[in-house]
Amino acid sequence: MAELKFRVIFSPGMFFGPGKADLLDLIVAEGSIAAAGRRMNMSYKRAWQLVEEMNAMFAVPLVASARGGSGGGGAWLTEAGQAVLAEYRGLQRDLAEAGAARLTALEARLAGTDPQG
Amino acid sequence: MAELKFRVIFSPGMFFGPGKADLLDLIVAEGSIAAAGRRMNMSYKRAWQLVEEMNAMFAVPLVASARGGSGGGGAWLTEAGQAVLAEYRGLQRDLAEAGAARLTALEARLAGTDPQG
Repeated sequence: MAELKFRVIFSPGMFFGPGKADLLDLIVAEGSIAAAGRRMNMSYKRAWQLVEEMNAMFAVPLVASARGGSGGGGAWLTEAGQAVLAEYRGLQRDLAEAGAARLTALEARLAGTDPQG
Repeated sequence: MAELKFRVIFSPGMFFGPGKADLLDLIVAEGSIAAAGRRMNMSYKRAWQLVEEMNAMFAVPLVASARGGSGGGGAWLTEAGQAVLAEYRGLQRDLAEAGAARLTALEARLAGTDPQG
């Protein structure tokens, strides 16, 4: 089935898309930036880079982290991080719904499409 | 102002996005695949490649072309090409409308955003 792939462009080179959203979701699931990055086959350095990019982009950092301690530190989403992630996932749902009929119309014109299907 | 950048993914490696839509628009404007490609800083080869990709992807070719003759040939959109392009531009409008409020909400959280603005 056809689907939309999109990112939000705030300005040239400044965007938020599926990779950043998935990384935030995995930071929630894993409690660690490194572990979240590994789940996306991303190097430790790349995962931190994306987090730093997001934290610098928004007025309030999206991801907070602590080093060491008996719990071994970890990472979590701030309230701003949770809000941005929820807004993006909501956007994703809204766009999928708004685009559904036209995606179906485009898909019906593809080669090898069964006109009876 | 924030904007959406999207493409429609029909299957892995098979997609329709802003580059293909712009090329179709320019083929209408220029009446020539080569001239349309030049307007996008695209090589002749690349423009033809994209046209062949689109023509193979859909049940009916989107672009027709003629070589030589007293008119020097040229290229134009078939009825299917006009329909696909119109559907894509409609999708673009629908998504921009459906996403507007959430884009504004995301944008308000950016660094350097004037909360009074």
